[in-house]
Amino acid sequence: MTQLLLHLSDVDEARWAERFRTALPEVAVLRRGDAYDPAAIDYLFVWKPKPDAFEGLTGLKAVLSLGAGVDALLKHPGLPRHLPLVRYADEELSQKMTDYVVAQVTMHHRAFSRFQADQKARRWTQYYPPQSKETQVGIMGLGILGQHAATRLKALGFTLRGWARSPKQIEGMTTFAGAGELDAFLSGTDILVCLLPLTEDTRGILNRDTFGKLRRGGLKDGPAIVNAARGGHQVEADIAQALKDGTLSAASLDVFETEPLPPDSPLWDIPTCYITPHIAAISDEDAGARYFAQTIRDHMAGRPLRNQVDTSRGY
Amino acid sequence: MTQLLLHLSDVDEARWAERFRTALPEVAVLRRGDAYDPAAIDYLFVWKPKPDAFEGLTGLKAVLSLGAGVDALLKHPGLPRHLPLVRYADEELSQKMTDYVVAQVTMHHRAFSRFQADQKARRWTQYYPPQSKETQVGIMGLGILGQHAATRLKALGFTLRGWARSPKQIEGMTTFAGAGELDAFLSGTDILVCLLPLTEDTRGILNRDTFGKLRRGGLKDGPAIVNAARGGHQVEADIAQALKDGTLSAASLDVFETEPLPPDSPLWDIPTCYITPHIAAISDEDAGARYFAQTIRDHMAGRPLRNQVDTSRGY
Repeated sequence: MTQLLLHLSDVDEARWAERFRTALPEVAVLRRGDAYDPAAIDYLFVWKPKPDAFEGLTGLKAVLSLGAGVDALLKHPGLPRHLPLVRYADEELSQKMTDYVVAQVTMHHRAFSRFQADQKARRWTQYYPPQSKETQVGIMGLGILGQHAATRLKALGFTLRGWARSPKQIEGMTTFAGAGELDAFLSGTDILVCLLPLTEDTRGILNRDTFGKLRRGGLKDGPAIVNAARGGHQVEADIAQALKDGTLSAASLDVFETEPLPPDSPLWDIPTCYITPHIAAISDEDAGARYFAQTIRDHMAGRPLRNQVDTSRGY
Repeated sequence: MTQLLLHLSDVDEARWAERFRTALPEVAVLRRGDAYDPAAIDYLFVWKPKPDAFEGLTGLKAVLSLGAGVDALLKHPGLPRHLPLVRYADEELSQKMTDYVVAQVTMHHRAFSRFQADQKARRWTQYYPPQSKETQVGIMGLGILGQHAATRLKALGFTLRGWARSPKQIEGMTTFAGAGELDAFLSGTDILVCLLPLTEDTRGILNRDTFGKLRRGGLKDGPAIVNAARGGHQVEADIAQALKDGTLSAASLDVFETEPLPPDSPLWDIPTCYITPHIAAISDEDAGARYFAQTIRDHMAGRPLRNQVDTSRGY
């Protein structure tokens, strides 16, 4: 019988095991505490794997990652890089990420920070936000998540532009590619949304230089950023400075260089910095177990795998 | 030559006159300071008309209202109620109102108030908002604005229900009608959006009794309301109380019983009350002049008028 081993930290592993047993009755679902022969394990499902996670798993056929982002996993010294690595990406995860992105983008488009400051001062000052079509939302990262968010933002009337590593044609969106077109992309962007994979090329991309190149005059109070990707994309000292000196009017951050965000971070106290504790999107057990059950069945049947990571590219 | 008189307060009347002259060159566009024979005026375009606004206009053929809501105008003792009254309602106005509504609904769906409170306390507490489809948005008022907002909220994945005075069939939405079905509508609503016309039936409808009937358990911290219609719809003392005792988790208010909101209103200081100074949507001069130029041409040609107010119904 085919054997699937779960190795999950910080989530309810027992619940995942139960869901997998329902979704995949033809496979033995094991947890680390169970009695099993490591060499007989066929598939490993991981989230924040410990250093010894891959030891003894000599018969492994594929690694399944609960996270959509695999940057940390790719740094695990034990990861058998010759095996297929599949990351999670499904409609529900995309929908949740889009829920977060749309809430932040619409908030900044409607000048939330200005009206909050006015309210604190008991000030009644009428200001009419621009139409959504006059506001340019620039999405960095045009994978499954970036394209999902783009479709919903387009339906709301925003003007969209996108930037990715390699050229992409996406209907209803002006696209830019690579380092050579980054400045052109930024120069027309009022609200910058980061949904990039974290790679050596994208680390620290949300920095002072980037913020200074965003369009001014689109949003009355200055451009805004939204980061729902990885803390490694952002230079937090630069964000704090840009919010203070007006280079940015607002920043919505769901991820941080160090998580949990340390109590002494200056970001906590900046009223135009909107902090959430890495909750933009999480994988649901039911949907996730169904997704990876299909992955395992596809692999067992020799079919191509959806969302297999290109380890050389990093996502 | 047909004559149009403008009578606008609190907006840039000269700019409107200029736009009307461009959009409607075959009509003489007059302002109150100009020399003209009141009895020769054919059309009157009003916003917040003064008590004597209609005096001497014995040849008037129709009244045009810059506002989408005509509740105040209908109370003007000089309004010639036998004449057609046309209110403003166009795509751009609808789009701006929807921009506001979507920003507020998504904010409450994503538990903004909770995360703001956590941020103030430098607290990192992970909580995952529900999927948008698990959240029921209830729209009161299913006219042009209500239906426009519904379409965009539907595209974002929310589950929609609607309530209006008379029964309506709207695709993708469970609808309720009249006082008899109000409780059923409220009992399934997590986020209540008011886009009603202000009439004697709807005055004060956002009150303690209504809030107590909203669904509990949909949004973790309790139901929320959004009022972008008229201050007369809401009982502000009840809103303040409901926010304090947890009956409501949040309220987004763009309109108030008295505007500007008085400095001593308790609403200013409630952190879960999100105040904007009646700026959700305003009519743009270009689009508005084009809209009413068409209205005047339709009337001159004997064609039916779009958005003519039923004065007995009140909208």
